[in-house]
Amino acid sequence: MNYRMLRYIMGQLLLTEGALMSLAMIVMLIYGETGMLYSVLVPLGALFILGFLLAFKKPEDKTLSAKDGFVVVGLSWIVLSLFGCLPFVLSGLIPNFIDAYFETVSGFTTTGASVLSGADFAKLWSPADPSMGMRGIFFWRSFTNWIGGMGVLVFVLAIMPQQDMKSSRLVHIMRAEMPGPKVDKLVATVKKTAAIMYAIYIALTVLQTVFLLFGGMDLYEAVCTSISTAGTGGFAIWSDSMVSFGGTVAHPDYCIWIVSVFMFIFSINFNLFYLILTGKVLSAIFSEELRWFVGIVVVSTSTITVGLCLAGDGFGDSLRHAFFQVMTVLSTSGFATADFNLWSNALKTLLLVLMFVGACAGSTGGGIKVSRLVISAKSTWAEIKHMINPRQVKKVMFEKKSVDNDTVRGTFAYMVAYILIFFVSFLLVAIIDGRSIETSFSAVVACINNIGPGLGDVGPMSNFASLTYTSKIILILDMLLGRLEIFPILLLFYPSVWRAK
Amino acid sequence: MNYRMLRYIMGQLLLTEGALMSLAMIVMLIYGETGMLYSVLVPLGALFILGFLLAFKKPEDKTLSAKDGFVVVGLSWIVLSLFGCLPFVLSGLIPNFIDAYFETVSGFTTTGASVLSGADFAKLWSPADPSMGMRGIFFWRSFTNWIGGMGVLVFVLAIMPQQDMKSSRLVHIMRAEMPGPKVDKLVATVKKTAAIMYAIYIALTVLQTVFLLFGGMDLYEAVCTSISTAGTGGFAIWSDSMVSFGGTVAHPDYCIWIVSVFMFIFSINFNLFYLILTGKVLSAIFSEELRWFVGIVVVSTSTITVGLCLAGDGFGDSLRHAFFQVMTVLSTSGFATADFNLWSNALKTLLLVLMFVGACAGSTGGGIKVSRLVISAKSTWAEIKHMINPRQVKKVMFEKKSVDNDTVRGTFAYMVAYILIFFVSFLLVAIIDGRSIETSFSAVVACINNIGPGLGDVGPMSNFASLTYTSKIILILDMLLGRLEIFPILLLFYPSVWRAK
Repeated sequence: MNYRMLRYIMGQLLLTEGALMSLAMIVMLIYGETGMLYSVLVPLGALFILGFLLAFKKPEDKTLSAKDGFVVVGLSWIVLSLFGCLPFVLSGLIPNFIDAYFETVSGFTTTGASVLSGADFAKLWSPADPSMGMRGIFFWRSFTNWIGGMGVLVFVLAIMPQQDMKSSRLVHIMRAEMPGPKVDKLVATVKKTAAIMYAIYIALTVLQTVFLLFGGMDLYEAVCTSISTAGTGGFAIWSDSMVSFGGTVAHPDYCIWIVSVFMFIFSINFNLFYLILTGKVLSAIFSEELRWFVGIVVVSTSTITVGLCLAGDGFGDSLRHAFFQVMTVLSTSGFATADFNLWSNALKTLLLVLMFVGACAGSTGGGIKVSRLVISAKSTWAEIKHMINPRQVKKVMFEKKSVDNDTVRGTFAYMVAYILIFFVSFLLVAIIDGRSIETSFSAVVACINNIGPGLGDVGPMSNFASLTYTSKIILILDMLLGRLEIFPILLLFYPSVWRAK
Repeated sequence: MNYRMLRYIMGQLLLTEGALMSLAMIVMLIYGETGMLYSVLVPLGALFILGFLLAFKKPEDKTLSAKDGFVVVGLSWIVLSLFGCLPFVLSGLIPNFIDAYFETVSGFTTTGASVLSGADFAKLWSPADPSMGMRGIFFWRSFTNWIGGMGVLVFVLAIMPQQDMKSSRLVHIMRAEMPGPKVDKLVATVKKTAAIMYAIYIALTVLQTVFLLFGGMDLYEAVCTSISTAGTGGFAIWSDSMVSFGGTVAHPDYCIWIVSVFMFIFSINFNLFYLILTGKVLSAIFSEELRWFVGIVVVSTSTITVGLCLAGDGFGDSLRHAFFQVMTVLSTSGFATADFNLWSNALKTLLLVLMFVGACAGSTGGGIKVSRLVISAKSTWAEIKHMINPRQVKKVMFEKKSVDNDTVRGTFAYMVAYILIFFVSFLLVAIIDGRSIETSFSAVVACINNIGPGLGDVGPMSNFASLTYTSKIILILDMLLGRLEIFPILLLFYPSVWRAK
């Protein structure tokens, strides 16, 4: 481990988090929530002072190995959430530290699992004293979704001075933080790639905000909803998520369609948007992963629409609920327009299985990822063909390219590690909390895939508050393992990575 | 495909099944069940005539490729069950063909999932007319567990003339039929290896029968219980499985301990018994897989004992129930001494997770197998270490030997195929039958791992009869995929394996 570089990047990270948290302060100032200011000023002070101290002296040796990249990313997310949860604790919204940390990790990892109850949301919409309002705090809550969606270190890379990055192999950081089995630079430098990614991300977020304003949301509602959708996080600012939008939005059905469509957009590999921007529209449309993903969306939406129609709902309502629900699960957002806990067992199981699938690689969505599933299935088939005919070369094609052996074994290893971690967590949560199998199973599914609400006691109209703290800590780890795709967090427990260089 | 060799082996197979089914006829004659004789005589006639016709002419070219071995095994099990279910249909015990086929596949694959209700068991114990008794039919039901446990083709290999087997590479058949990631010959020839395996198998079955006779069972009860335990099948001859042994056994607690200990014994790799017989006791005891297995047994039994004690049961009862339940699940037998559906959610979940683990490779038990899980976990860790340090060689050690690359990739492919098949089956059963998630999930878990009873509507005190026929067909496929470890069944759907040689 290059400790000086670790220190330097951590400093940059804290400064960046400070800059981003300042936006919450601005929101507070706009809405006159002066009584809440200290809850961001204290963490802001800590972030800027500590960040400045750590990043003050640039290290001479700026190289980072692949291993170092993983460790930097794993550690960053833990530290980021430590500071990120302070506004919740200090404002009194979530006084308990572990609960606040759970909520923050859930935000940054774009999970959207919450410990807030209806009474907590009431503090946002109708505070007794307007200066004690919580628009700023809830903005920060939604904003954690946006920050975590693309990855905060990718943001650091985008704003870091170019001369800092030469020959320091920071591509390892991008690879470790961005989702998917393979991450490549779009353009010659990491800095530029990161900047392009963020430019697309910001542009799409603004676009969604504008569309939502047309639906009758006020600016605050539209911004909070868009940043949470963009990160596929799922933190809504209403206690019933999107069932009624608090009852004040003029065109709720239109807004639901907009959110659904943008959940679809944010589930797509961002590289495809770059291809479209550079005129390569056809290669974007014919992406193999995209075609699989669209196929899954169409089949699942049709099945659920039919299921809901058979249960007696009208076609329009059924289609809207079905598409929304499929997108909220596949994109791993976790918003809700209906309590799917009340749906039939068949449809609930379909949603449960879709929770594992997740979005496309290189998007802000979580889950196993479509490309990883396709590569796994194709590699398994190649093994079987090799078994039939041992002389046959095991060749796996994906996106018209041959998948190299390292990616195949890495993908297999990922799947096995994922399954083992999943079952150990499921077992621990079940034994510690003793809830129904539906509850324990779906709680772990919802957290490790960064979705948010599960079924049973942790369904869309309930929350995670009632679980024990031990289970919450396990689920915090699951959310981090899911968002960072296992290895950056697992490596933190491996002693040799901490050996000084 | 060497079709002549396929024909010849199928003929041998049918003749062998006929010989084995004759035992059921003998049981009928002993107990004077003359009214039931036709229900075995008809299938016996079919088996001997068809078997004779197929096996009459020996093929000149006796070679079988690895591919052919898989296909022979996959096809054999389907055909075997077709004839095996006839006694159930003809005797009127299970008049519906799909139900009878389900019961028979469940028997041969040593699953033990049943469609029989309490009223059906009543026909065995108190028939109005003794000549219409069903001791013979129920013996055949339990005997399918024994036949499937070690594998009927392994039996064919053991009795086939030596000159038929020279240079025909029949080791492929043994590899495809016996469980575990790697199967090797114990001694120089396949025939001798198969014969040794069966000798150990028969000796242990007889030993258990003797022990059970001391517990107060009559000969029929002791034999039926032992053959079902030996195959780790779980077909009991009492409607409440082993809760009360029908109320007629003198020492039920003693019998429960005997069955538990023998379930443990039959979960161990048979190679270890051979090592012990040849004096290599130490290398048997220090087998890595055995140590992992014992570790899992001890930890789970202790946890459940504590859980039951906390729920108010006495220590002796708790330990007996806990050890029995852990062994019935790990060995994938599926007997029951208590309705674990009524246990706490924590203990139920522990059992559910153990259902995936299964027994040791080379035993009669099912599940994923301990060795496969250990190799998967170690290989995943090797991938992670390789990620940290790309110059490090990916070396996986198991049983003090280095695991070759093909076994690692084969194991990974197995795990992924298993997970994909599992989730597709789960989804289909849930959508088709619309039962609770607990029921659909555990039904598939119980069938693909060859355990038998699940939770919820398919729990130990219920049965599978109420599921739709479509779901039953899916579960039949899952049982076959589980017992034959996926590939022999999957290959049957691959056109090129059917190309004539």
